[in-house]
Amino acid sequence: MEVFQEFEPGLKDIEGFSHVILIYWLHQSAGFRLVVTPSWDTEPHGLFTTRSPNRPCPLGLSVVRLVAREGRVLTVRELDAIDGTPLLDIKPYFPSLDGVPSARVGQPKGRSKAEER
Amino acid sequence: MEVFQEFEPGLKDIEGFSHVILIYWLHQSAGFRLVVTPSWDTEPHGLFTTRSPNRPCPLGLSVVRLVAREGRVLTVRELDAIDGTPLLDIKPYFPSLDGVPSARVGQPKGRSKAEER
Repeated sequence: MEVFQEFEPGLKDIEGFSHVILIYWLHQSAGFRLVVTPSWDTEPHGLFTTRSPNRPCPLGLSVVRLVAREGRVLTVRELDAIDGTPLLDIKPYFPSLDGVPSARVGQPKGRSKAEER
Repeated sequence: MEVFQEFEPGLKDIEGFSHVILIYWLHQSAGFRLVVTPSWDTEPHGLFTTRSPNRPCPLGLSVVRLVAREGRVLTVRELDAIDGTPLLDIKPYFPSLDGVPSARVGQPKGRSKAEER
């Protein structure tokens, strides 16, 4: 990901974090339906139980591994976004705030596939 | 949190999730500085290593526990936002995507305080 030059000072010390949260604008989002039947399921689910890019406010979010930083360029892993996606914000990942390994996930039938999205 | 009536169908089955991610507009955010010295530290840090509400794109994010849902009203715990904050998006929390309990946190001196913010 590339950060605008004017914002580069805001990246100071970010190398200390192994993970960051990226929020981006899903610029190719095309409308939305509030109830969706995912391809991996036969049951319809509420849009807000999915990570579909087609949402009323098309914000995308990925928890990514920060592999390297060179100036204003961050190399990350596990980013679920297409090339050219506008980056809106970078937040540090704090396990105490953001890490809930035991969180219960709905949609038991399609759980593993839901998590791919 | 209250969801607009028109979006209520999108909440279908959200009760199956113990945690959700809320993204909101930090409407009282007032400008930003790219390098900040938090009150709990003597060292300046990049803004993007903090969860300060004063950011170029003032988006807030909280991983919250979903305690109850009644229609379009969600009762949540651990929400770091003031009353009246406009909600932009709700995403399901998937531990496999969002849970990194072993993530390394920078700013070792101020770690615990940093995490309060």
